[in-house]
Amino acid sequence: MLFGAIEAGGTKFVCGIGSEYGEILEKFTIPTTTPNETMERVIGYFKGKHFDAIGIGSFGPVDLHKSSSTYGYITSTPKPYWGQFNFLGEIQKEFPIPIGFDTDVNAAALGEKEWGAARDVDSCMYMTVGTGIGVGAVVNGELLHGLTHPEMGHIFIRRHEKDLFEGSCPYHKDCLEGMASGYAIEKRWGKKGIELARTAKVWELEAYYLAQAIANYILILSPKKIVLGGGVMKQQQLISMIRNRVTGLLNGYLQHENITSGQIEDYIVLPSLGENAGLCGALALAKKGYFRR
Amino acid sequence: MLFGAIEAGGTKFVCGIGSEYGEILEKFTIPTTTPNETMERVIGYFKGKHFDAIGIGSFGPVDLHKSSSTYGYITSTPKPYWGQFNFLGEIQKEFPIPIGFDTDVNAAALGEKEWGAARDVDSCMYMTVGTGIGVGAVVNGELLHGLTHPEMGHIFIRRHEKDLFEGSCPYHKDCLEGMASGYAIEKRWGKKGIELARTAKVWELEAYYLAQAIANYILILSPKKIVLGGGVMKQQQLISMIRNRVTGLLNGYLQHENITSGQIEDYIVLPSLGENAGLCGALALAKKGYFRR
Repeated sequence: MLFGAIEAGGTKFVCGIGSEYGEILEKFTIPTTTPNETMERVIGYFKGKHFDAIGIGSFGPVDLHKSSSTYGYITSTPKPYWGQFNFLGEIQKEFPIPIGFDTDVNAAALGEKEWGAARDVDSCMYMTVGTGIGVGAVVNGELLHGLTHPEMGHIFIRRHEKDLFEGSCPYHKDCLEGMASGYAIEKRWGKKGIELARTAKVWELEAYYLAQAIANYILILSPKKIVLGGGVMKQQQLISMIRNRVTGLLNGYLQHENITSGQIEDYIVLPSLGENAGLCGALALAKKGYFRR
Repeated sequence: MLFGAIEAGGTKFVCGIGSEYGEILEKFTIPTTTPNETMERVIGYFKGKHFDAIGIGSFGPVDLHKSSSTYGYITSTPKPYWGQFNFLGEIQKEFPIPIGFDTDVNAAALGEKEWGAARDVDSCMYMTVGTGIGVGAVVNGELLHGLTHPEMGHIFIRRHEKDLFEGSCPYHKDCLEGMASGYAIEKRWGKKGIELARTAKVWELEAYYLAQAIANYILILSPKKIVLGGGVMKQQQLISMIRNRVTGLLNGYLQHENITSGQIEDYIVLPSLGENAGLCGALALAKKGYFRR
């Protein structure tokens, strides 16, 4: 069985075809321009190919309420032209087959649970630390939705006492994304993260913020696996700094061997689907959409 | 159909019999002393009565992993004598019928969803602010569990810049519970909350901390209803202060009418089961246990 997959990001769209076992057979990258132009190229790519369902993991915010008149829309994004865009509808019009639609990060969480680093558990969280910070989660095997989809990148965290950066979030200034996204790193230090790879204090501060957020996610959601992806996590020193700080913050309160007895390396992990995490996630959404018909 | 219900708190146990419609027909309160003595009185109360299942909402931490050898135990509680106590086993031995077992706050969340303030939604959160702070949650109709049960009372929050209180949590000092529980109020101000009812700054600070935690819960879990109970919430001025601060903190970022358009009175609410929230929760666990057989 074959599925179409669309990883829709603010910078680029990755489209592909894959199998029900999570193998990506081909993929095609398109820069994100206007909705019209981008969708024309997406549809052009899939047209004439064979697949049984499509999965879309989209940048957001998106409307995921199936009973809503704007279900499948990208809603209040500040990205020009994309606000109130009927993404699902445009694809459905061309391809009258099952479509799974969710946020990019929920898709990535589902992909890692199906075929990746979280395939041995029924609940997990996928956090991407890139230009922005997004988090998706699977709870009891289902993607986490509620009043809206979670927006965990914007939680309020404690400022480091020596950090004078005001924060870069247009809504909340110094929320997590405002203090620890790739964009915040560049704004604070005047250089991109990749150019600061050897500046220890940059990554100590980054670990300080990310660990605090992750400790709160653990206390609130109690995921069975935490997968950390995105460009900022490519700093290889970062994940062990985060693990140490999370253990320190929780301070023995949560009595679980994953946290207390040195097994945190198997609890807070990197994505095992690597570059294909997003596309595999969209593939997993397609599979879910297909079997839910 | 009749169910037995046990609301097991650190100070008292409330036992009762109720119907599948959430009516409490009778109840009986026992002070919490040693496990032996307390259980003898609990079992004595139920012995000879008729019911088809029992629900237990227990103080914690408890082991909720059905495959674990200590499933149904109270685990690492600092409460003398109760650590590693096989609560579920002791009850099951006397009453070989279905038993639903969960935390007291998960029970209360389930009760409010079944029969109370959250009966119109499939996901909600119940927060009790009393001597300690505990939170339970229902996600997609199921109680939220994961690696352990959530411990949302202990999340890390921002200290108010004028608050010099060091915090009362033995594990984390100034986590939410350490700064905003009834115990923290008493430690900070030298008087119990109930004696400080007219001291505005006490409740402004309390709302500052609780709203911050609730905003984070919303960003992470996206519950469809938030129910606030416990002794501290009996300060009637508090809930509207919390609602205002939550709206202010989120600052229009979450585009949902429940938060942005003055409907927050229907979103952040008091328990509608009042004094019986805990016992009704245990009743809901019994019902769930019965129909899950």
